[in-house]
Amino acid sequence: MQAFDHPLESAHAPAFFLMRGVLRPNFEVPARAAALREGLAALGLKAEVPPLPGRAALESVHAPDYLDWLRDAPGEWAAMPGAGAEVVANIHPSPEMLAQGARPSTKAVGRAGWYTADTACPVGPRTHEAAAAAAGCALAAAEVAARGGVAYALCRPPGHHAYAARAGGHCYVNNAALAAQALRDAGAARVAVLDIDSHHGNGTQGIFWSRRDVLTVSVHADPDGYYPWFVGHASETGGGDGAGFNLNLPQPMGTGDEHWLEAVAAGISRVRAYGAEALVVSLGFDASEHEPLAALRVTEEGFARAGTAIAGMRLPTAVVQEGGYNTEVIGGLLARFLGAWG
Amino acid sequence: MQAFDHPLESAHAPAFFLMRGVLRPNFEVPARAAALREGLAALGLKAEVPPLPGRAALESVHAPDYLDWLRDAPGEWAAMPGAGAEVVANIHPSPEMLAQGARPSTKAVGRAGWYTADTACPVGPRTHEAAAAAAGCALAAAEVAARGGVAYALCRPPGHHAYAARAGGHCYVNNAALAAQALRDAGAARVAVLDIDSHHGNGTQGIFWSRRDVLTVSVHADPDGYYPWFVGHASETGGGDGAGFNLNLPQPMGTGDEHWLEAVAAGISRVRAYGAEALVVSLGFDASEHEPLAALRVTEEGFARAGTAIAGMRLPTAVVQEGGYNTEVIGGLLARFLGAWG
Repeated sequence: MQAFDHPLESAHAPAFFLMRGVLRPNFEVPARAAALREGLAALGLKAEVPPLPGRAALESVHAPDYLDWLRDAPGEWAAMPGAGAEVVANIHPSPEMLAQGARPSTKAVGRAGWYTADTACPVGPRTHEAAAAAAGCALAAAEVAARGGVAYALCRPPGHHAYAARAGGHCYVNNAALAAQALRDAGAARVAVLDIDSHHGNGTQGIFWSRRDVLTVSVHADPDGYYPWFVGHASETGGGDGAGFNLNLPQPMGTGDEHWLEAVAAGISRVRAYGAEALVVSLGFDASEHEPLAALRVTEEGFARAGTAIAGMRLPTAVVQEGGYNTEVIGGLLARFLGAWG
Repeated sequence: MQAFDHPLESAHAPAFFLMRGVLRPNFEVPARAAALREGLAALGLKAEVPPLPGRAALESVHAPDYLDWLRDAPGEWAAMPGAGAEVVANIHPSPEMLAQGARPSTKAVGRAGWYTADTACPVGPRTHEAAAAAAGCALAAAEVAARGGVAYALCRPPGHHAYAARAGGHCYVNNAALAAQALRDAGAARVAVLDIDSHHGNGTQGIFWSRRDVLTVSVHADPDGYYPWFVGHASETGGGDGAGFNLNLPQPMGTGDEHWLEAVAAGISRVRAYGAEALVVSLGFDASEHEPLAALRVTEEGFARAGTAIAGMRLPTAVVQEGGYNTEVIGGLLARFLGAWG
């Protein structure tokens, strides 16, 4: 197995995080990547540094105006008197506004609100560089998969909450979606994304919502009480041409190995039935029993078994890192998960 | 002229305010009411304490589930470990979510995001009481207008950014909309709301968007660079039955007396042409040249002339307080404005 990692990812080190009405330290930090690197080292894997993607590659799933904003927002923001160090929105277009002629604003505060879904995606001066570096890792892993292999992309920041034109939940560029699109572009007729992060992969769902050439499957904690709160229900099955090609498998809070692995198995069954020629795994470790929020209670053994089940599909696979925030355990979990590919 | 004020309004004293990525003290504070009371005193007006409105009155423009949330949210919030003192959302349903099956969450964080438009409407334990007290003032003023008179409602918190089922921008219950609805219910065939707060009256627009029995007119700073950022454009003219019955008159940032008064005059012309039988004025003083944000540059004389022009319509009128945050000047501005009714 090959692995990809890029030093530029550490240029993104967000500080702002608003939780339950209180500012707290952001936990999507460079130390996460360091912990994951230890997991790779334990497997004897030496990560390669991939090339940075060109603009066209990012535009394969993202809107040009959004990418411009991600690059330009920190400068616009810093030009405001009294501005904080990071771009953080305090308003977003509401449903009533959208129904009553809402238009994008051309100013920094309005643009931040237009292009983000929440306050959990602060944009710093070098966030766009780090996001591009993470995307480069995912694209390199997809290239390996396109040749029939299996590869791991140590992506940070993660990507699965990013829509085509909107950041959210620590995510800016949707690495998994880029990998899936790259596999399609390389000739795979049907590509599946299997997302086992504890949060619904709402950005990935959104990007492929109306498409049947990419199946999206997400196993996650019930959004009724967990990010992204409003979507991720089983009733969301895709729209238009994509109707029936999105599968959400929300699990009750506190779900442990047995039922979580059953859900992963159900996702695998759907991927098989779909006839996927290549697979992208959105790999989060925040389903771990040792996570701070502990929405799910998956053990190290559970992640190892999930790896074994997914590897058992024997598909060309790009494994893309998403969340997982307990830096004490995520390296070990990565080693056990990827160890399944032997 | 009669005036209404309620001591319970001071039960709402918000602290949280996120501006340009930085937490700052909230400026929609009880001291505003104290300053406005001085303006009433200067006119020799003694405010009466109105009755608190019953639930049915609030439901005349607000959704029951929203009113339940406003009452229950602080208790739900406080039950979360580590929660801040006020309910503040960190995520709202995004356009993609709304298009892909978004559902309300039943949990505190999700409910806060569902029922608010931004981070500028923190809900404290007694916010609902204060909002009801402010609504009582507006309804009492409407009752005076329904008898052909003119009255002022010292409403705090303000209301014009509140939609039927969503708080936003310091606003929770839409006092002006309640007053307009009460005038309709009392028999006025056509009621106009003239909003001269420096911010677009987006909540009021939203509530009456599809209705022609209430004309909504708003004179405000161009939303492209100012709250509410995404709506308030001239192109928003109402929908369905209400098409043509919403008039937005956005002004460039920095607009002073001359052009602002022209816009107010244009609003008055529209109200006259509509044939309004009663008027609600959403009165903000944040268009003042002395406001902290100084989006517009209206002088004390400008507010006095606006009062004269509006009083000149000789309509039964409920004047409802909206914004205005410089406590050094808003009392004097109120005295000059209301002085027009002699």
